Amino acid sequence: MTLLYPPQLTEARLETLVTEINDFQLTHGSLAKLTHVGQGHTVLAQPVGVSCFPTVWPRLCYVQAVKLQQAFNRLYASIAEDPAWLQALLTDLIDSDSFIQRLWRIHEHVEQEGYAQRLSLGIFRSDYMLNKRRPSGQIQDAELKQVDFNTVSVTGGTQGNIVAAMHEHMQLIGAYGFDKAQTLRWMDSVPPCDTVNSVLSGLTQAHLSYGPITCKAAASLAILMIVQPGSVNICDEKPIEYGLWDHNPPIPTFRLEFGGSVLAQTSLASNRALLYQPPNQPNKLYEISVVYLRAGFEAEEYDEIGTSARLELERSRAIKCPSVLTHLATLRRVQQALATPGALTRFLSPEDAACITETLVPMYPMDKSRRGMKARSLATNPVTAVDYVVKSSVQGGGRNIYRGDIPAFVRTIPKNKSKEYTLMKMIEAPEVHGTLTSPQGFYKGPVISELGIFGICLWRKKQGGHGAYIVTNKNAGWSFKTKSTEVDDMSIAKGYSFFDTPYLLDEEDDRYEDSGNGVSCSSSEGDFF
Amino acid sequence: MTLLYPPQLTEARLETLVTEINDFQLTHGSLAKLTHVGQGHTVLAQPVGVSCFPTVWPRLCYVQAVKLQQAFNRLYASIAEDPAWLQALLTDLIDSDSFIQRLWRIHEHVEQEGYAQRLSLGIFRSDYMLNKRRPSGQIQDAELKQVDFNTVSVTGGTQGNIVAAMHEHMQLIGAYGFDKAQTLRWMDSVPPCDTVNSVLSGLTQAHLSYGPITCKAAASLAILMIVQPGSVNICDEKPIEYGLWDHNPPIPTFRLEFGGSVLAQTSLASNRALLYQPPNQPNKLYEISVVYLRAGFEAEEYDEIGTSARLELERSRAIKCPSVLTHLATLRRVQQALATPGALTRFLSPEDAACITETLVPMYPMDKSRRGMKARSLATNPVTAVDYVVKSSVQGGGRNIYRGDIPAFVRTIPKNKSKEYTLMKMIEAPEVHGTLTSPQGFYKGPVISELGIFGICLWRKKQGGHGAYIVTNKNAGWSFKTKSTEVDDMSIAKGYSFFDTPYLLDEEDDRYEDSGNGVSCSSSEGDFF
Repeated sequence: MTLLYPPQLTEARLETLVTEINDFQLTHGSLAKLTHVGQGHTVLAQPVGVSCFPTVWPRLCYVQAVKLQQAFNRLYASIAEDPAWLQALLTDLIDSDSFIQRLWRIHEHVEQEGYAQRLSLGIFRSDYMLNKRRPSGQIQDAELKQVDFNTVSVTGGTQGNIVAAMHEHMQLIGAYGFDKAQTLRWMDSVPPCDTVNSVLSGLTQAHLSYGPITCKAAASLAILMIVQPGSVNICDEKPIEYGLWDHNPPIPTFRLEFGGSVLAQTSLASNRALLYQPPNQPNKLYEISVVYLRAGFEAEEYDEIGTSARLELERSRAIKCPSVLTHLATLRRVQQALATPGALTRFLSPEDAACITETLVPMYPMDKSRRGMKARSLATNPVTAVDYVVKSSVQGGGRNIYRGDIPAFVRTIPKNKSKEYTLMKMIEAPEVHGTLTSPQGFYKGPVISELGIFGICLWRKKQGGHGAYIVTNKNAGWSFKTKSTEVDDMSIAKGYSFFDTPYLLDEEDDRYEDSGNGVSCSSSEGDFF
Repeated sequence: MTLLYPPQLTEARLETLVTEINDFQLTHGSLAKLTHVGQGHTVLAQPVGVSCFPTVWPRLCYVQAVKLQQAFNRLYASIAEDPAWLQALLTDLIDSDSFIQRLWRIHEHVEQEGYAQRLSLGIFRSDYMLNKRRPSGQIQDAELKQVDFNTVSVTGGTQGNIVAAMHEHMQLIGAYGFDKAQTLRWMDSVPPCDTVNSVLSGLTQAHLSYGPITCKAAASLAILMIVQPGSVNICDEKPIEYGLWDHNPPIPTFRLEFGGSVLAQTSLASNRALLYQPPNQPNKLYEISVVYLRAGFEAEEYDEIGTSARLELERSRAIKCPSVLTHLATLRRVQQALATPGALTRFLSPEDAACITETLVPMYPMDKSRRGMKARSLATNPVTAVDYVVKSSVQGGGRNIYRGDIPAFVRTIPKNKSKEYTLMKMIEAPEVHGTLTSPQGFYKGPVISELGIFGICLWRKKQGGHGAYIVTNKNAGWSFKTKSTEVDDMSIAKGYSFFDTPYLLDEEDDRYEDSGNGVSCSSSEGDFF
């Protein structure tokens, strides 16, 4: 059977599908909060951008990513408990980057005092794209390449889960117009998604592992979710809270804004139990079992107050998700170091190291080392630069400089700042077609997807402070995002990227054919409506 | 223990509560769709208006309403199968009101041809308010009075259910600041809500009662939900569809707009099986088991095309929810006739009739009968008119004329039109305080609530066409709405009324005290913010 995919719908049917999608989103919280004017109680919401159909992805690459996750979890837990290695790696950034410096000083402070909690929780997401093995490569024989490993404030689990359910529903109601054979094939090709429940099970286990209340003044244990002030991403965050409250017995969970609110509404007991006083329950004190950060990941949040808040949280007995060291392990510099031949065997068995290495993309520091000099020559030469991206050593996101823009950009970097950047080989994704919809419009054309595999890891710092004893190491679902090939950035918040579901292609699917979605395949540009 | 209610929160805590409420609404589809511009894919949504706290309601009145529902279900099923009685009652309206005439002609057409389906499904809602027995009456000894009995396109089941869950969650997270005793009392005072599941069970049973496919061309049975074009109430409607699809095995359910779409996308087989062809499945034909009307209840919908559409549906073999005769039974004229002493015993046992009579409000026709003359004298006298409301004999809703406006209005009614109106004694609700929130603002002050009890009834027309054999008769949950005493209209769509949950007061609750919500109890006007 030839698989012509994605399904080619008439304009009228596509419009019906989009209405069904919007309605599903409104009724299931697949929304972005637009505004919140405090006094006026005005809240407006709009559907988040989504793909109309699941997008093809090789089954082998999906399975490979799923299988790798627990090795990645172990790797990052081990890095987080290897402060000496981290310090050596980050030493110049600690000196030059005030954000990293503040985080490192917090760690140093707590290390000196002695960590009050040896357990750490990681809710991780490893992001992958597909890379063509040959310039003319088909998607079926693309290879899996890691883009990022996220250890702090991992988002999109809830939203991704809702969109997976949405696609499932669209198939169920026949909105894709599949015949029986196509329906059977769908069932075998679209993996189930349970990201929210998996994240909940991780938080629940950490909560239960905290042990009994240690502070007599506290009435109960609770989880504290630290959020950004005025977060518009509440549809991704709140269902986690609801799920914990719906646990039997309920796990009290409170939102608290990063910064001054942390200092105002929490305090440390003499044994460093973190005590929280909810504003709506003036007489009730909770002892915090888990601090779950959905904030504190941006440099701008670390003014003096933000820094003090993070310090207090880190000093506390609460289990941190993540700890400061786990947070630091997400830096691009760490990813770059791990891509250096031989680096992984410090943390992993040779077998695991080999499997992980396969997914790493060539990355170069832009410092004065031999690899740094090579990076400089690749980046300044317009011919080679087009295969690369320059990223900050600190974080992913908006600061990336792509391809042809690199040579000019590199010339503007002061010499003493160049080590704050990483040169990374661009991933050349095979071209497939997709149909994306958002309140801003409608896109039909070539697309690129990114698979995020979630992992949960609970570990205990070994006696002596070096090394991680793994308590729990699990996969925790996935999210999948798709964007037009015309944008390089995968940001959901900026509206470039759309939640999606993978449609898994088998290796022997040589009869799969990109339907082009009504757009000529030879065209490299999609149509915006 | 004195119950001071509703809880008195500081402004800051109330603001936190409202944020929690808005977030719950966004994530659970407690929204109204604001706009839908077809091509632009623009959908905006806002939370529906809700009460911040459940509002007090006497437990005895709640229990009484719940207990009455099955008698009401039986009553209206019996009326719907008593065309002779209905015709005699409506005869002048059939002549003078084109909407009623069109409905009645549809019934006549199908009766002549012979009804192809003897089963009918009713999804009913009986609405009640509280009436003070004495002018100084407290809420604890108020009596239950029926406002409306709805047999067609009964809405609010989903939205009411979500808001009940929302209040439950606010209590659970401590947003009401209850102590232990107040929490225990809450658990005993707030009834659980399962309206959506109950409505689903009614539709499911009707679907299963339809029997096997009768038309060879059809691939499967399905439920057809007939909706108004461009409905903004999708958050109330869609979860019913999702619930049916989520049934095991799925019950295919499709939305179809009332009017031309019905004629275009459905057809009758020779045995009058209703066949539906979903636009997204060009090669698949469904035989419709149940026609579930969420449209076709307004006169404006009955142009020639709308009338033809309703006729086709009524002629079909599908089980109608509701049938045309069941629809006609919701007319105010029927309610008025049932309030005439002795009328109920035609349909019910003396015991049931007596119980129902207790809840009926004095109602008068405005025709030339003896009761009609009495109505005229009550309505034209400004002293007596203030205790009454004039409603259309046809439907509830916006056409009501209240109290002091009645004498002037009555003078404007042409003599031959006056029989189209009903004079109804105003229900004088005891005053309690409430706090309401919506995107339009915030209200603190005196409020009035309305309890809607849902019922499900599946019945079979007896051989010979007169009388109903009841197959299923069940309660189906509740909805509860609250509004400021300053408006008379209970319309949710117009933003006057807010979804709510009853907080049940025991008879012996003489120690309950209205907290006034920070507003002086002697003040009869609330504060809008």
